[in-house]
Amino acid sequence: MNKLEINDVRLKDHFTQLSSIGALPSGGYHRPAFSEADIQAREWLENKIVSAGLDYQMDGAGNQFGALGREDGLEPSILLGSHLDTVTHGGSYDGALGVLAALEVLETVRDAGVQLQYRLGLVNFSDEEGTHAGLLGSRAFCGLLNVEDLQQPNSGSEVFEKGIRRIGITLNSILAVSSKSFLPTVYLELHIEQGPILEKKSIRIGVVTSVVGIRTRKILFKGTAAHSGTTPMNLRRDAGYGACSFAKAARELVLAKFPKAVVNIGNLSIEPGSFNIVPGQAEVLLEFRSQSIREADEMEMMLRALAENIAASEKLRLNILESANIQPVGLSQKAQSAVATAADDLHLSSLMMLSGAGHDAQSMSRICSSGMVFIPSVGGISHSPKEFSKWEDCINGANVLLHSAMKSASP
Amino acid sequence: MNKLEINDVRLKDHFTQLSSIGALPSGGYHRPAFSEADIQAREWLENKIVSAGLDYQMDGAGNQFGALGREDGLEPSILLGSHLDTVTHGGSYDGALGVLAALEVLETVRDAGVQLQYRLGLVNFSDEEGTHAGLLGSRAFCGLLNVEDLQQPNSGSEVFEKGIRRIGITLNSILAVSSKSFLPTVYLELHIEQGPILEKKSIRIGVVTSVVGIRTRKILFKGTAAHSGTTPMNLRRDAGYGACSFAKAARELVLAKFPKAVVNIGNLSIEPGSFNIVPGQAEVLLEFRSQSIREADEMEMMLRALAENIAASEKLRLNILESANIQPVGLSQKAQSAVATAADDLHLSSLMMLSGAGHDAQSMSRICSSGMVFIPSVGGISHSPKEFSKWEDCINGANVLLHSAMKSASP
Repeated sequence: MNKLEINDVRLKDHFTQLSSIGALPSGGYHRPAFSEADIQAREWLENKIVSAGLDYQMDGAGNQFGALGREDGLEPSILLGSHLDTVTHGGSYDGALGVLAALEVLETVRDAGVQLQYRLGLVNFSDEEGTHAGLLGSRAFCGLLNVEDLQQPNSGSEVFEKGIRRIGITLNSILAVSSKSFLPTVYLELHIEQGPILEKKSIRIGVVTSVVGIRTRKILFKGTAAHSGTTPMNLRRDAGYGACSFAKAARELVLAKFPKAVVNIGNLSIEPGSFNIVPGQAEVLLEFRSQSIREADEMEMMLRALAENIAASEKLRLNILESANIQPVGLSQKAQSAVATAADDLHLSSLMMLSGAGHDAQSMSRICSSGMVFIPSVGGISHSPKEFSKWEDCINGANVLLHSAMKSASP
Repeated sequence: MNKLEINDVRLKDHFTQLSSIGALPSGGYHRPAFSEADIQAREWLENKIVSAGLDYQMDGAGNQFGALGREDGLEPSILLGSHLDTVTHGGSYDGALGVLAALEVLETVRDAGVQLQYRLGLVNFSDEEGTHAGLLGSRAFCGLLNVEDLQQPNSGSEVFEKGIRRIGITLNSILAVSSKSFLPTVYLELHIEQGPILEKKSIRIGVVTSVVGIRTRKILFKGTAAHSGTTPMNLRRDAGYGACSFAKAARELVLAKFPKAVVNIGNLSIEPGSFNIVPGQAEVLLEFRSQSIREADEMEMMLRALAENIAASEKLRLNILESANIQPVGLSQKAQSAVATAADDLHLSSLMMLSGAGHDAQSMSRICSSGMVFIPSVGGISHSPKEFSKWEDCINGANVLLHSAMKSASP
C-alpha cells in the first residue's frame, strides 16, 4: 500500500484549471466566498466529483462533499479537505491545494482498486477566509456556529445574504447543518505553511501539533482634540501619542516576554486626523496569538496593564472592547503520528510545528481526530498574489496526505 | 480721545445676530468659506456696513471692506479686521469677533464725529480657515497667492469652484486682486488667543510679537504586508511599528530639545489596516511650528534624521513629502507698541506673546505695519463648539483695538 502514489499530471491539470477561476489580470486570485468566482469554482468541483464517479452532496452551509467507499454508518470515515475560497487578491495555493489533493487522493485510491473498509471523503468548506464569517462552513458542520455569529457578517448583512442566496442556502439552513451527513472519525488537511519556517530550515513536511488561539481587541484612547499651534505640549491630552506609545511598547513586551507568541497592531485610526489638530481619539486594533490559553491570559493581563499605565500617565480615558476569542487547539496525537510516519516512509524530512494561522482543522478537532500536513511557502508569503509553493512540494504534500489517510484507517 | 469707548450693547447685538448664522442644532458653528452659511454671513455684514453709512466694496477674492474717512490716496489708511468663516463645527469667536469689533470701532468713531485725517477701514478676509486654501483672501490681497495655490484646494476643485461661483468670483479674479483697492499702512486684528496662556496668567490683553512658522510633512514608511499569525516577529518589516516609533520619538525630541516650539502628529494611516495583517505601509502627518526659521530648520533636520534612523533599523523604505512651508513672521514694533500702550491707558494688564496659530495678520505684515490684540480663551479651547471668551474680555479687546487704531494714526 505504501507504493501508492498520486497522479501528479492529473493534480497539476486540476490545479491549472482551477487557477483560471477568479484570476485577476493584475495577478492574484479573487474568489471570496459566495462571489461569482467562488460559485464557478464550486461548479467546477461538483463536476469533477461527479465525473470521477464519486458521491456528491452539498450541505446547508454550502460545504461540498465527495465520497468513496462503504456507507453503512458503522465504519470509521475519513474526511480530507480544505477550502476553495480566497481572500481579496490572494494566491492560488491557500486552501485550493488541500481540496485538490483530497480529490486526487480519492481518485488515486479508486484507480488502484483498493477495497475500502471505511468511507473516504473530500470536503470544500465554505468561507474559511472569513469574507463573511471565518471558518463558517467548518464551524457550522461541527455545531460551533450560533445565530449571533451570523448577525454581523464582516461583509455586511446585505452582501452576505445576497451571497448565500446565490448558492441556494439560507441563514436557517446554515444553522441547521450538522456533521451527521458525514460522521467523520478522522479529518486531515494539507495546506501551505504560509510562513517561512520550513523553507528556512529546508524541511519538506510540517506536522502540525496545534493551531494557535487568536484574540483581538479594539483599544480606544480618548483625550482632547486641541489646536496644535496654541496648545502647549505639556498641557495636551494627545490620544494619538497614547496609541503610538502602546503600539510600540506592546510589540517590545511580547518580543521580550513571550518569544513563542506573536502580537500585531494591524491598524491605528485617529480622529479628527488633520495636521493641525492634536488627536482627540485613537483606536488601536490589537491581535495576539498563542498556543496556550494560560499564555494568552498572561499576555492579555500584561497588555491591558500596559494600556492602563499609558492612559493614566497621558491623562487619557481607555476603553478595551473584546472582539474575537478563538481558543488554541492541540491536534490529535494519532493524526500527528500518521502524518510523521507517512513522511518518513516517503523519505521526506519533517518538523513538528505550530500553525500560526487559523484553519478548518481547528473546528474539526472538536468533533474528531484531526491533523494537518504543511508544505513550504516560498518566502513565507501568503494572502498575496506572490504566494507560491514549489510543485515538487505540492506533490510531496499530496502523497503524505494519501498515506496519512491510509494509516489513519488502520486500527 | 482716550475717552472714546465702543458701544458694548451694539457690539453684543451684532454678535448675537451673527451667531444665529450657521449655528448647528448640536452646538457649534459651521460657516466654511463660500458655503450657504458663509454667504448669509457675508450678506449680513454687507447690510450692516451699508446701513451704517460706510463705503462698501468686495474685491475679486471675496474680501469685504467697509470704510470711513478721507479717500484721496495720500493719507495713511488703517485697516482693521479678521474673518467670518469658521472651521467645521467651530465656535462663534474665532475670526467673527475681530470683524465685529472692527465694525464697532468704525461706528464708534463715526458716532463721535471724529474728523479723520486718514481712511479707516474694516475687512472680512475670505477663507482664513483654509476650507479651500488657508489665508486665501489675505494672501490674494497681499499678492502672495499663485495659480499653483489654487490648483489643489483642500476641499477639492469641484467644491471650491462651486463655492466661488456662488459669490460671483472666479479663479482669475482671485489672482488679479491687489491691495491697491485699499492701500493700508497699518493693519490691526483682534482675535481670541485660542490657547490657555492669558487665562492661566490672569492677563487681559495679549500683545502679539510674532506669528509662528508652520511646516507640514507627510512621512511614508513602507514595509511588507504579511500574515500576522505566520510571520515571525523578528522577520517582519512592520511599517506601523516604524510610524508609531517615529510619532512617539518626535514628540519626545521636541519636548527635550525645542521647548519653545511645538510638534503634532495629527494623523497616522495604516494599510491595509486589519487585525491579521502586519502593516505594509503607514503615513504620518507631521506638523511643527517655530518662531524662527533657524529653529525650524534645525527641527526639520533632526526630525528627518529620526525618521531615517527608524526606517533603517526596521528595514523600511522612507518617503518624506513637503506639504506646507509657512514662514514665521515678526509683527511690527510700532503696532506692538500701539497695542501695549492702548492696554496700559485702559488699565488692562498685558503680555507680549507669540501666536501659535496662523492669522491674516501674517499675510498683511508683508505689505504694511501689522499688529494683533489677543484676549483670553476660556480653557484655551478653540475650533470647537466649546470655544468661549468672557464678554468682558471681548469688550476690552474691542476698546484696545479702537485705541490702538487711533494711536497708529498719529505720526
